[in-house]
Amino acid sequence: MGDNGHGGGPERLVVIGGDAAGMSAASQARRMRGPADLSIVAFERGNFTSYSACGIPYWVGGDVPERDDLIARTPQEHAARGIELRLRTEVTEIDPDGRRVLARDADSGSEYWTAYDKLVIATGARPVRPALPGVDAPGVHGVQTLDDGQALLDSLALAHSRRAVVVGAGYIGVEMAEALIKHGFTVTVVNRGPEPMATLDPDMGRLVRRAMEGLGITMVNNAEVVEIRTAADGRARAVATSTDEFPADVVILGIGVRPDTGLAESAGLPLGAHGGLLTDLAMRVRGRRDIWAGGDCVEVLNLVSGQEQHVPLGTHANKHGQIIGSNIGGGYAVFPGVVGTAVSKVCDLEIARTGLRQKDADRVGLRYETVTIESTSRAGYYPGAAPMTVKMLAERRTGRLLGVQIVGGEGAAKRVDTAAVALTARMTVEQITALDLGYAPPFSPVWDPILVAARKAATRVSPAGPR
Amino acid sequence: MGDNGHGGGPERLVVIGGDAAGMSAASQARRMRGPADLSIVAFERGNFTSYSACGIPYWVGGDVPERDDLIARTPQEHAARGIELRLRTEVTEIDPDGRRVLARDADSGSEYWTAYDKLVIATGARPVRPALPGVDAPGVHGVQTLDDGQALLDSLALAHSRRAVVVGAGYIGVEMAEALIKHGFTVTVVNRGPEPMATLDPDMGRLVRRAMEGLGITMVNNAEVVEIRTAADGRARAVATSTDEFPADVVILGIGVRPDTGLAESAGLPLGAHGGLLTDLAMRVRGRRDIWAGGDCVEVLNLVSGQEQHVPLGTHANKHGQIIGSNIGGGYAVFPGVVGTAVSKVCDLEIARTGLRQKDADRVGLRYETVTIESTSRAGYYPGAAPMTVKMLAERRTGRLLGVQIVGGEGAAKRVDTAAVALTARMTVEQITALDLGYAPPFSPVWDPILVAARKAATRVSPAGPR
Repeated sequence: MGDNGHGGGPERLVVIGGDAAGMSAASQARRMRGPADLSIVAFERGNFTSYSACGIPYWVGGDVPERDDLIARTPQEHAARGIELRLRTEVTEIDPDGRRVLARDADSGSEYWTAYDKLVIATGARPVRPALPGVDAPGVHGVQTLDDGQALLDSLALAHSRRAVVVGAGYIGVEMAEALIKHGFTVTVVNRGPEPMATLDPDMGRLVRRAMEGLGITMVNNAEVVEIRTAADGRARAVATSTDEFPADVVILGIGVRPDTGLAESAGLPLGAHGGLLTDLAMRVRGRRDIWAGGDCVEVLNLVSGQEQHVPLGTHANKHGQIIGSNIGGGYAVFPGVVGTAVSKVCDLEIARTGLRQKDADRVGLRYETVTIESTSRAGYYPGAAPMTVKMLAERRTGRLLGVQIVGGEGAAKRVDTAAVALTARMTVEQITALDLGYAPPFSPVWDPILVAARKAATRVSPAGPR
Repeated sequence: MGDNGHGGGPERLVVIGGDAAGMSAASQARRMRGPADLSIVAFERGNFTSYSACGIPYWVGGDVPERDDLIARTPQEHAARGIELRLRTEVTEIDPDGRRVLARDADSGSEYWTAYDKLVIATGARPVRPALPGVDAPGVHGVQTLDDGQALLDSLALAHSRRAVVVGAGYIGVEMAEALIKHGFTVTVVNRGPEPMATLDPDMGRLVRRAMEGLGITMVNNAEVVEIRTAADGRARAVATSTDEFPADVVILGIGVRPDTGLAESAGLPLGAHGGLLTDLAMRVRGRRDIWAGGDCVEVLNLVSGQEQHVPLGTHANKHGQIIGSNIGGGYAVFPGVVGTAVSKVCDLEIARTGLRQKDADRVGLRYETVTIESTSRAGYYPGAAPMTVKMLAERRTGRLLGVQIVGGEGAAKRVDTAAVALTARMTVEQITALDLGYAPPFSPVWDPILVAARKAATRVSPAGPR
């Protein structure tokens, strides 16, 4: 059964994955080409579409009151614009030579082929679920999808006591730890690395740990989880490391995510070193004229390191979708790459990074100087001035900016954008010292913290300075 | 009398003007050269030094509790570092050929010559005082210096009733209007232009007017002040325009400032079209080897318009001082120019601009497209998301960014820094659409407002779009 062919009607665009990248691509293609010219079918294996996955920790934590607040557009809204969305329908096979996909309806179990002229793969990422005993027990949760978030909230309601363990201390782990504190849980975060937020260098991650500890979160660093122990009813009851056991009614896996590219791999499509699909600048899968890919299932070029990496962020997914949709729609757009910008928030602490950490720079063969400065978000005398620590990496000899990390109070995080643009423009720290940034006492000291760091870095890399 | 010569001792640096530019220059030179190598004398005609003039409205308004909070460094602190500061001492003549300056002590009235090897002119700016009847009456105030601020506070305490008129609606006028509201005054702002904040295009200035009116400030636009009327005791009692009279116990002149360069002009130093000193990239006065100038008394190159302009802002003054001090200290530093960034705050409204307004672009012969978009400071579903309006100018055909104006709630103003860096790097709006800016729900919608504006602008300037 199924519609495995089509006649002289409109071209057919098939989208696999109904979240940010997929539905942005569908929407943009639709904006540029009407239904008589292009039919659009999107398959989504979950129950939801077009939602903000990045908002899940805030919904679980109660800052965002309703699940539906996270949904940008409903299936009905997509349908009204001529985009057919098939929820609870998983694509199980791509046949690139036959230009068709095999899909299974989760409710009926029926499978059918659908032909495409153009295909968008936006299968996203899956949380890493390490092969640990007990990892599949009830009470163990990822927080990647709205379905995951709902399952977690249900589990929180069921929990016998109020103890939670978060495995992993990346930004999802840290955000979830805070969300669970808000639910009245006692929270322990078990982390493989020396400090939380491995997206920062450890000296900056230490500042995050202190803030977490200030919230009452127990941080266990340098610890390897070996087992999730279960109770007689089969539910998770504790997380065991090689040396300790931490009781847990709820376990959150925040170890990170991997591109969900099993389907693409089976179809013989090219994957990179991090398991993500490889595309060209127009977001076309390399070597394929009629297949595009975007969002958390692809690798992107880091413009600073010169290497591909996996950066699962909604902002990139939306850009990818926009670019894919434009290209399918008959326009022209490219995604030049990323510089590695990320911002997050733990309680009142704002955390930001862009470019390379020390270990990234080491890995790609760059030599650099680092400086760290303390400043404030506003003029020191202005009410509400919050402390801020800025770390900056600059290439030796050339003085080119390589990376910035910021940890501080309100107003800290978005300052990283200045550095992100400077990285994109390949500016030197000397050039950054001269930037005309906004100054008024409610917004910045007379020397913006980014300028203060750049001045110090410029002294460090200048020919007259120490080498 | 006086020390009009010096022997084989250290070189002597003389600084005229003891605020941001002058004292930054002195401090940086001192950092690089000890007292045995360089003696430093700074003359300041006022009673204060090294203070944040930009903080005066916040001190007058009560946000900053103490005057001394605005003082970064006292004369005693300067003295401890080997910088001799002569307060209440006005330089009345520069003799460039004789390499000496004539100074008058305000208390004793005595005058004396001081020789220099290197001279820094940092005489700042003076508020424009139009030649109106009554402009010198008691109760009429500028707010350029700490002395001005103190005189105003004294005047507020004396006022018979609580009515104030602010003449001019630039950022100082607008900030002062808000400060006077906090003192319980009824405030009228009389403005020559069509909307307040002429640093914005009028369509954006309108948003500021609405916020001011929301605070209870009466905005009178398109009005020319013809007289400040005085009472029998000689104090100001009303501001008259050609058609109306506005009662006032206190009048604030917020018409803007002009470079204070009478001294430099008398000495034959080169001034530009806006009355500011002209310097080279190292902040040396053009044609002079031993005289530098910086801060509010110089003109700076606008990198977008390609023309000199007068931009009296503390952030530039500090940079100039730093650069002058480095060069005098034996280092090397240059000031490449500005892009015209400014941020300010009226109540909860944040206001920012960078680059060119429409009239600036018209004046220098640029053709452009403009777009205006509405967005929010955070993800729409995240608590505290504030509305934000972004206007963007992009050059026709090339798509190069020319300017950005932002008016919005908390988190709006410093977003202008992204555009300031992009302007410095001469990016196109198409390039800006691809920038890797920080995204997380507490900090930004998934498309940062700057990206949203750039996308719309890119469509407008692209070859496929309307021309």
